[in-house]
Amino acid sequence: MLNLVGLGLWDEKDVSIKGLEIAKNADMVYIELYTSKWHGNIKELEKIIGKEIKILNRGNLEEKSSEFLEEVNDKKVVLFVPGDPLIATTHSSLLTDAKKRGIKTEIVHNASIYSAIAETGLHIYRFGVTITIPFLEKTGNQLPLSIYERIGVKKKRDLHTLLLLDVVSEKNKYMTPNEGIQILLKSEENFGKGIFTEDTEIVVFGRAGSERPLILYGKVRDLMNKDFGDPPFVIILPARLHFSESEYLEFYRVK
Amino acid sequence: MLNLVGLGLWDEKDVSIKGLEIAKNADMVYIELYTSKWHGNIKELEKIIGKEIKILNRGNLEEKSSEFLEEVNDKKVVLFVPGDPLIATTHSSLLTDAKKRGIKTEIVHNASIYSAIAETGLHIYRFGVTITIPFLEKTGNQLPLSIYERIGVKKKRDLHTLLLLDVVSEKNKYMTPNEGIQILLKSEENFGKGIFTEDTEIVVFGRAGSERPLILYGKVRDLMNKDFGDPPFVIILPARLHFSESEYLEFYRVK
Repeated sequence: MLNLVGLGLWDEKDVSIKGLEIAKNADMVYIELYTSKWHGNIKELEKIIGKEIKILNRGNLEEKSSEFLEEVNDKKVVLFVPGDPLIATTHSSLLTDAKKRGIKTEIVHNASIYSAIAETGLHIYRFGVTITIPFLEKTGNQLPLSIYERIGVKKKRDLHTLLLLDVVSEKNKYMTPNEGIQILLKSEENFGKGIFTEDTEIVVFGRAGSERPLILYGKVRDLMNKDFGDPPFVIILPARLHFSESEYLEFYRVK
Repeated sequence: MLNLVGLGLWDEKDVSIKGLEIAKNADMVYIELYTSKWHGNIKELEKIIGKEIKILNRGNLEEKSSEFLEEVNDKKVVLFVPGDPLIATTHSSLLTDAKKRGIKTEIVHNASIYSAIAETGLHIYRFGVTITIPFLEKTGNQLPLSIYERIGVKKKRDLHTLLLLDVVSEKNKYMTPNEGIQILLKSEENFGKGIFTEDTEIVVFGRAGSERPLILYGKVRDLMNKDFGDPPFVIILPARLHFSESEYLEFYRVK
């Protein structure tokens, strides 16, 4: 039995009672921290569940996943995963491989950025597909036109757009909102369709799930040079706001 | 201070350590159960936090919200909410009103159906806006053409569609997948655009977060007469599947 247990958004205190109970009863407990930034403390989590937790990296769960599944076999194994476990699509491949071997799988869900964004006051059902802004060195030094155009299309269709910022966790490298904004402004310069300019209004949402989440709303020009502090962050490009969304977001307008 | 604490998807064991600690230290603890089906036990939750929990209904938190906020004022008040607290947009209005009165607000996030749907193997970032199928008596006995067309548009654009099924919690009435399917088939009959037929492949996802979640994938004709058991449910209308999505979903194909 392979049980993927969600860590939720911030630290070890975001784990649910159910998740803890399952970990306490497991034969082996692992954690992966490469799909998202986690601010918890493994030692604290080990104390809570009374058990050692081994860290697995991308290699263990992707290229070498068969070694991992070999080990799971008929044992009760918990894998802690940041957020809600299947947000990282890589883990659905792991589950497919487990199922092929006849290993039972279970998910203990937890909070993820996909629903936490409702904390900005934007209505969750109005979000369209999610787009990740990649580090430019991965894409030949400019944002692909397709990504830039998808952002524009969705805005025209009256959908909010959640923009995830790239992560290279192996290098502890998290794209800042400032970098994300610069990449979008540079695309605007290259492709020039008026999709993302200094006058565009955006929301920066950071440290979701922490005691001090950051929500800032305003024009790009008023946000682009801010120091936003510690990651993680997302940027939201809102569509035309409903009255209730607008009333809520005004509390967070950048001065 | 008004703290909205997410209950997560299923029962009292889905609450996080953080949520429990905050409730233990609160002056007053409330719960609302009208925005979604919750399978927990209030008495058990009271035992865990060592405190009485009062149930609030829609009237208390909507029309009469000023009475509730009057009571909050400078006390530490927890309101338990099913899922992730702001998924129900009604609660963002409550927060706006609280902010206007200078009441501090905090959110303890938890799992919600918006990320749990990844358990079906469908990639979460490929979902477009969410659509609710209303009980027909609310809409003049037929599904509005606009809803039906939005479903079709998104399919054409290669986006998965999450279809929420209507709830009238005051009457303990939860739309079954069978009813949802019938409404969509009836719309097909009325509007006839080939958007949702007996040959359409869909996913029925039920009891998310429970020990026995239900995932069934197949043609409408093979699903429409099934007995799916206890609510809640959602229906997903997938776009063209990626290879990895397809491989995963085949484990759940209805026989």
